[in-house]
Amino acid sequence: MKDCIFCKIVNKKVPSSQVYEDDMVIAFMDVQPVNAGHILIVPKKHAKLINDLDDNTVAHLAVISKKLNGAIRSSGLKVEAINHFMADGEVAGQEVAHVHLHVFPRFKNDGFGLKFPDKYSKLPPRSDLEKAAKKIKAAL
Amino acid sequence: MKDCIFCKIVNKKVPSSQVYEDDMVIAFMDVQPVNAGHILIVPKKHAKLINDLDDNTVAHLAVISKKLNGAIRSSGLKVEAINHFMADGEVAGQEVAHVHLHVFPRFKNDGFGLKFPDKYSKLPPRSDLEKAAKKIKAAL
Repeated sequence: MKDCIFCKIVNKKVPSSQVYEDDMVIAFMDVQPVNAGHILIVPKKHAKLINDLDDNTVAHLAVISKKLNGAIRSSGLKVEAINHFMADGEVAGQEVAHVHLHVFPRFKNDGFGLKFPDKYSKLPPRSDLEKAAKKIKAAL
Repeated sequence: MKDCIFCKIVNKKVPSSQVYEDDMVIAFMDVQPVNAGHILIVPKKHAKLINDLDDNTVAHLAVISKKLNGAIRSSGLKVEAINHFMADGEVAGQEVAHVHLHVFPRFKNDGFGLKFPDKYSKLPPRSDLEKAAKKIKAAL
């Protein structure tokens, strides 16, 4: 994809601080890290959404995320825990239209967190959960 | 694990609104959803952190998350995009000490979002990214 920044990184047309590369994926430092050590893992083949990838690539991305999680933990960087995050679509926060998995170190009072909807504190009745489960099972 | 709520769900000792099950993983509705359709996928074998799992299980979790992402999208539930999220350790937000991958629908103005550290808006120099990359590569 000519105008995709991650394709340009894959093809070494723009610089990145790379940590890992193989036939299927490349991993490099996010230029806007939550904390030092924030990695993005991307499939080399352009795809916007996870469902545009074949299962082998999805599986491999996850295995490499485990490997890099371990490397962050033993790197000497400040890390007490790790988040893995993927935004699949703009409304979920996807800013580059090329699948990327965030893996970033966390430590106490690092300033990162999640904001929840107002309704979040009110647990839904079991019947609502069953209704959602039924719809998802029907779609499987 | 006797006192693990997710092990109890795996073993059907406590109820859940299940959407998927196979030999390795089970998926069910989060009782505190960000939005209706919020799924947790857990390995059947107890493990606290992603690095306590073998690669096959990690790969399979990811492939099933893709499958369930697709099912949420075609379920008829309100969904414009999807987040995949994993908290690996308490400080990252892990509340149950049994690996679980969140997959949840998102839509405009749903009230969910990320909070970033103050430093986040100030991009670090390339030299900082290279320093972090070097430490992580050395640990690989």
